[in-house]
Amino acid sequence: MTTVGFIGLGIMGSPMASNLLRAGFDVIGYDLVESSLERLTGEGGQVAESVARATSDADVVITMLPNFPQVEAVAFGEGGVLDSAKPGLLYIDMSSIRPQTSRRIAEEGAERGVRVLDAPVSGGERGAIDGVLSIMVGGAPEDFAAAAAVFEPLGRTIVHVGPAGAGQTVKAANQLVVGGTYALVAEAIVLLEASGLDAGLGLDVLAGGLAGSRILELKRRTMVERRFEPGFRIDLHHKDMGIVLDAAREAEVALPVGGLVAQLIASARAQGHGQLDHSALLKVAENLSGRGD
Amino acid sequence: MTTVGFIGLGIMGSPMASNLLRAGFDVIGYDLVESSLERLTGEGGQVAESVARATSDADVVITMLPNFPQVEAVAFGEGGVLDSAKPGLLYIDMSSIRPQTSRRIAEEGAERGVRVLDAPVSGGERGAIDGVLSIMVGGAPEDFAAAAAVFEPLGRTIVHVGPAGAGQTVKAANQLVVGGTYALVAEAIVLLEASGLDAGLGLDVLAGGLAGSRILELKRRTMVERRFEPGFRIDLHHKDMGIVLDAAREAEVALPVGGLVAQLIASARAQGHGQLDHSALLKVAENLSGRGD
Amino acid sequence: MTTVGFIGLGIMGSPMASNLLRAGFDVIGYDLVESSLERLTGEGGQVAESVARATSDADVVITMLPNFPQVEAVAFGEGGVLDSAKPGLLYIDMSSIRPQTSRRIAEEGAERGVRVLDAPVSGGERGAIDGVLSIMVGGAPEDFAAAAAVFEPLGRTIVHVGPAGAGQTVKAANQLVVGGTYALVAEAIVLLEASGLDAGLGLDVLAGGLAGSRILELKRRTMVERRFEPGFRIDLHHKDMGIVLDAAREAEVALPVGGLVAQLIASARAQGHGQLDHSALLKVAENLSGRGD
Amino acid sequence: MTTVGFIGLGIMGSPMASNLLRAGFDVIGYDLVESSLERLTGEGGQVAESVARATSDADVVITMLPNFPQVEAVAFGEGGVLDSAKPGLLYIDMSSIRPQTSRRIAEEGAERGVRVLDAPVSGGERGAIDGVLSIMVGGAPEDFAAAAAVFEPLGRTIVHVGPAGAGQTVKAANQLVVGGTYALVAEAIVLLEASGLDAGLGLDVLAGGLAGSRILELKRRTMVERRFEPGFRIDLHHKDMGIVLDAAREAEVALPVGGLVAQLIASARAQGHGQLDHSALLKVAENLSGRGD
Repeated sequence: MTTVGFIGLGIMGSPMASNLLRAGFDVIGYDLVESSLERLTGEGGQVAESVARATSDADVVITMLPNFPQVEAVAFGEGGVLDSAKPGLLYIDMSSIRPQTSRRIAEEGAERGVRVLDAPVSGGERGAIDGVLSIMVGGAPEDFAAAAAVFEPLGRTIVHVGPAGAGQTVKAANQLVVGGTYALVAEAIVLLEASGLDAGLGLDVLAGGLAGSRILELKRRTMVERRFEPGFRIDLHHKDMGIVLDAAREAEVALPVGGLVAQLIASARAQGHGQLDHSALLKVAENLSGRGD
Repeated sequence: MTTVGFIGLGIMGSPMASNLLRAGFDVIGYDLVESSLERLTGEGGQVAESVARATSDADVVITMLPNFPQVEAVAFGEGGVLDSAKPGLLYIDMSSIRPQTSRRIAEEGAERGVRVLDAPVSGGERGAIDGVLSIMVGGAPEDFAAAAAVFEPLGRTIVHVGPAGAGQTVKAANQLVVGGTYALVAEAIVLLEASGLDAGLGLDVLAGGLAGSRILELKRRTMVERRFEPGFRIDLHHKDMGIVLDAAREAEVALPVGGLVAQLIASARAQGHGQLDHSALLKVAENLSGRGD
Repeated sequence: MTTVGFIGLGIMGSPMASNLLRAGFDVIGYDLVESSLERLTGEGGQVAESVARATSDADVVITMLPNFPQVEAVAFGEGGVLDSAKPGLLYIDMSSIRPQTSRRIAEEGAERGVRVLDAPVSGGERGAIDGVLSIMVGGAPEDFAAAAAVFEPLGRTIVHVGPAGAGQTVKAANQLVVGGTYALVAEAIVLLEASGLDAGLGLDVLAGGLAGSRILELKRRTMVERRFEPGFRIDLHHKDMGIVLDAAREAEVALPVGGLVAQLIASARAQGHGQLDHSALLKVAENLSGRGD
Repeated sequence: MTTVGFIGLGIMGSPMASNLLRAGFDVIGYDLVESSLERLTGEGGQVAESVARATSDADVVITMLPNFPQVEAVAFGEGGVLDSAKPGLLYIDMSSIRPQTSRRIAEEGAERGVRVLDAPVSGGERGAIDGVLSIMVGGAPEDFAAAAAVFEPLGRTIVHVGPAGAGQTVKAANQLVVGGTYALVAEAIVLLEASGLDAGLGLDVLAGGLAGSRILELKRRTMVERRFEPGFRIDLHHKDMGIVLDAAREAEVALPVGGLVAQLIASARAQGHGQLDHSALLKVAENLSGRGD
């Protein structure tokens, strides 16, 4: 039976570890937060006192951490994953971070005989609980193949998109389009309402035509009603737009709309909406037009 | 039997008139271009030598013209629609123009006993031919009801979205979201390709998640393959972004993303791509990143 | 002695007419506001009851009006300037309007033997009172030469910048740079203050280097102190950004920064700051960052 | 006599070290490039074989390095400045880097009894040679006072702008305004030229009014003539816009215009103009409008 070391048992990591347990994996978890560990043991998992302990006996290690500094500390630090890996370990970083860190992990892993995949996800807490995440995977094809059984209980759309870092780049492209679409729908709502129209009715028409999108389908009602409970928080999307711009800088491309949308999301956060759903970008748009509260 | 005066038999107007003929309406058409008139007579329609002649015996007049100056000339000019209407005429302007012109036609129509609807469409030449346009209608509810039989052979989604001008405002909101979505998808493609990835594969993932949209569904393949035959031309979307910004100015709202996207579409036109499909916004995005031809 | 018909005796026009009187011109004024006319008579001017009366005996007609619809009405209307002009009239429109209207006046003027200049100004009410405006003049060189004596008491920098419409285009370029510079200084202030620094001290350094500008020189103190009494109002700059974007559309160019700045100025107006000085763009910038009131 | 360790003898550092020698300081320099060291010895300086050697006997250490990773390596590395400092060392980092690194150096310096200033400059190679740089200094007032004699031969405008990191923040604000002003002047040139006007003449008018700026004063002629020899290179301004956005993120502010300008500068670099003067932002603007080569 495969032993999975799981490092980072937060909102996303915790239900993912549960799904792995349920699928029959041995899971040995590590997190700084005590209560996350308790939940894991309650479901039949084991608890490690350190990254090294979670790694040393594992066949597969998964990290699910907030951002690249945490990943770098856990991957490269003394007693970190690369330091503690047994030969042939498959290390899957499922955090959303900048591609360059993913590539560096892959390079250093290769030097130590550790196989590395970057595999960020989309689908949010709901998708993690239901095991229906979209997983975008970068790395060697044979390592992707080797990880199939591990991904299976976690996601529904599982795509190998390219070499090391590619998963992160596709995730960045995803967040660029998602953030920008929220901004556009927000501006459409403001235009409709300020023109005296029923925005819900107007968006119904948009949703049925070329302007249609998953966001219009799932969120137009809650946006018009100003219900912004998360979902995926502005704070996280703000972090992700930083990754988008980092990735653009590294790829030497210019993203004018992305650059602007990043600032609008920064505005949502600066205005105090960091804990709301990313659809709360509407609050920035209406504020700019002297509307809303 | 209802007689429909149809003014403006271009790429959109011509197949719309054909669909009305096929549905059993008497159609009397007017256009400045001789060949458009010939087609109409070939299908059993009548030809008028002037706007006045197309209007004077009609129960319903439809105009389908390039922009507001043409609509104003036809609606308000000497021998124009309002001037030549018989009492109770139902005048439906299906052009995409700025809302303020639509409101002015409605006001002047009311003074002369003419019922007026603004009813811009989306769905393009294909939708016009197949009679499956989306029609966004502004005006009085009873006039919308009276127009039902006329709209029926033209469209599939036919929605009364509010009072005079409301159809145009919803159309503007639609074009804002469509133009912006193209810009976002274009930036995503540039980021993916410049990062060395297979953009088609990356967009497949995006299309399946929260970033998904009708545009990703219908256009991601042609965009990645750089096939930009229209479809809906950049030149027309450029005109429409002018309407979006006019409508925003009139509604006293600020649309930062819309304002930027309008300039990117203006760039596509300035770079000589006015006759290409609006998905050719990709050419601007890749040019900004020193890519493409 | 030269007789000047002066149409539009508002905040700018009134002191300009006074300066012409003081320089020895016969001035016959027209305005819809009674009190403006009283001031003119008090200073030795004459009052006309109509545009036609202000024009018919004049050697030179100056219009100083809010925007192009007023100019078009006064220039082209029945009993308007072109209609009432004596042969050889020199018609100088000093309003800030879109270039295309200026060109149309010049064309129609040429057909009727009226010499036409577009001559928008910068320098504000203060510059109008002190007779030190900058005047940007479009039209034929010989007409510019003929107007020299009229411009002399009104301005200090008086430049013939090209053919009909050129004055308006240069004015538009000016307002683009001015509006954008305010936006940049505003963002610099927000960044400095949010970083815990003394923005006044920081801007002192900027003002002394390559970032230096007339705006930093004249306005950095009042901006940091949030004193926004006009000066030149947001409402007017909003109008002018409309001209900038119209001119860009006509010249078939893309102005991404201009397009965004136009929306930020629209935001200042939408947020209720239309009557404040254009430096109040700072209020939009700090609001976006969750700062200020 | 004061001994200054000078680490980083590039385009800026080399003439700065020369000016310190000329002012009577003992300078012991370190650089990875051999030829830079030869120049130093030719002018009476000493050469160190390592950062540690350049630091261990110095009363003052200055670093002038490309970006924060180099500064972090030199400051924090084994045998780095903090590691090798004698008690009471005054460490002045004159590189342009993100404020957070400056603050971290100051904190770690304080723990080791090293006094730290961040002191980025503006004025370019010319200013470095002539000893007339603007120097923006962050740190403790007493350390600023202690550094006066060292700054004196290097700069003309030397301002203490706040605590640790403040120098970097002011420099970031400076580059934001400079980059944005170039973008605005570029758009003005494109608008004027595409309208058929003499851009040089138009900019002369702008330079004399509220739109006036140091950039218009110094660069309008070369921009209109498309002469883009540096000066300050696009590549460096691109780096600096990264610092601006990092600083904004850290200060939790939104900079919409800054965010867009950063992408336009990224575009200049992506289009292959990284080695040209930053005024070459004009090439992006004209390219967007289908103009230029």
